[in-house]
Amino acid sequence: MHYATLGGGKRFRPFLLMETAALFGVPQAKALAAAAAVECVHCYSLVHDDLPAMDDDDLRRGRATVHKAFDEATAILTGDALLTVAFEILGRPETDPDPAIRSGLMLGLARASGWQGMAGGQMLDLIAESCAADFEGINHIQALKTGALIEFSVDAGAILGRAGTAERRSLAIYARALGRAFQVADDLLDAEGDAAEVGKATIKDAAAGKATFVSLLGINGARQRLQELEAEAIGALDQFGDRADMLREAARFVSIRRS
Amino acid sequence: MHYATLGGGKRFRPFLLMETAALFGVPQAKALAAAAAVECVHCYSLVHDDLPAMDDDDLRRGRATVHKAFDEATAILTGDALLTVAFEILGRPETDPDPAIRSGLMLGLARASGWQGMAGGQMLDLIAESCAADFEGINHIQALKTGALIEFSVDAGAILGRAGTAERRSLAIYARALGRAFQVADDLLDAEGDAAEVGKATIKDAAAGKATFVSLLGINGARQRLQELEAEAIGALDQFGDRADMLREAARFVSIRRS
Repeated sequence: MHYATLGGGKRFRPFLLMETAALFGVPQAKALAAAAAVECVHCYSLVHDDLPAMDDDDLRRGRATVHKAFDEATAILTGDALLTVAFEILGRPETDPDPAIRSGLMLGLARASGWQGMAGGQMLDLIAESCAADFEGINHIQALKTGALIEFSVDAGAILGRAGTAERRSLAIYARALGRAFQVADDLLDAEGDAAEVGKATIKDAAAGKATFVSLLGINGARQRLQELEAEAIGALDQFGDRADMLREAARFVSIRRS
Repeated sequence: MHYATLGGGKRFRPFLLMETAALFGVPQAKALAAAAAVECVHCYSLVHDDLPAMDDDDLRRGRATVHKAFDEATAILTGDALLTVAFEILGRPETDPDPAIRSGLMLGLARASGWQGMAGGQMLDLIAESCAADFEGINHIQALKTGALIEFSVDAGAILGRAGTAERRSLAIYARALGRAFQVADDLLDAEGDAAEVGKATIKDAAAGKATFVSLLGINGARQRLQELEAEAIGALDQFGDRADMLREAARFVSIRRS
């Protein structure tokens, strides 16, 4: 679990959670536990996705994947335990003294990561390998597989910050656009990037002939789409003024990141 | 997920939850959701334990295991999604209107099934295959691997029933003895039972030369231990009078079950 979580990574989801919470005056120290929980779920998904039965990747973040560094049984259990510990962290009174907040966080995480979220998206993605998915199909799969946890990370910050309904709705628009941008950028990176920079052993999707935003929209179309999504994300933050500058930067970062 | 959860099984954990809740007057219909959640977690653990990298079992409850009926990736994701949906079920307001109750249930489930519970026990069990565990070692491994979720099932019923501290403590003693009895009985079944009745393809532990309660205590010693644990479990229920008769029957059932 240590190896899987503390070996680098962008910490993008915890960053989103903490910056969103900061919009509402939640100090970083008070948002750290929930932020760690979403990173545990993200890392669990990577450990399981890398397994031989799934994407069969030997390298992650420039190091051996968990099942390569240890073994497959350890990798399966590491993922299981990381998913579970996320709920344990969110359920602890130290995370938030109000049980209604903790309960809301745990339910939101379950929905974002389960059969109607990340795990469901991964299953659809596996199925999509054997059938041609169109733009709407890829969009739907990615919304579940990648988008749901990004959206939850933002929403968790809003929940911790006792955001009002209107604020939460604006942040949801931001998070949805950001999640979509993230995936388009991923496909662009896969198409343009070199393996060392991306930190993966092989550029699998293209090799497998799997539909991506790039194969569907072309490089220029995907870049255009990325710009639109970045603008949509940034536009949704208007009501927060300067306080949301870090979240705006995050949307820009998604477009320009190289790994 | 359907195949993994609705293909039979004793439903022992949901039974314990509902019977414990019934001690405090919680109607069955109101305990059903939480009961389903613990069964989802139990079934997730079976799906992952059966994987080739783990116990490598082809049969479960007389049918093909999930990775045999479908494939390994589907089995991994099925388990992941079943674990997650358990938290989703416990987090829904329909399960209990009080967020403090829901939060307590989710935290308890996370602790019982995570690195300090079921998943941790499974990891220790894998390690124990390559080193000789003694009685205390096996007891500890089984307490995590099997005991923790049985104990949580009883405790969840007590939580739903707003049990007092003293009642919850007595029920914890009952559940711990019951969980231990369950595992001793399992080892006896493996040593004595035939594969068709147990519903597993092979009697793996003995074949692997792995320490069990039977290999450590002998058949008669294990039977003696089972009787003691049954008596301890039943004795812990004294304060509940006739209302606990079903839970007493459960303790007797654990000793005499044939599958």
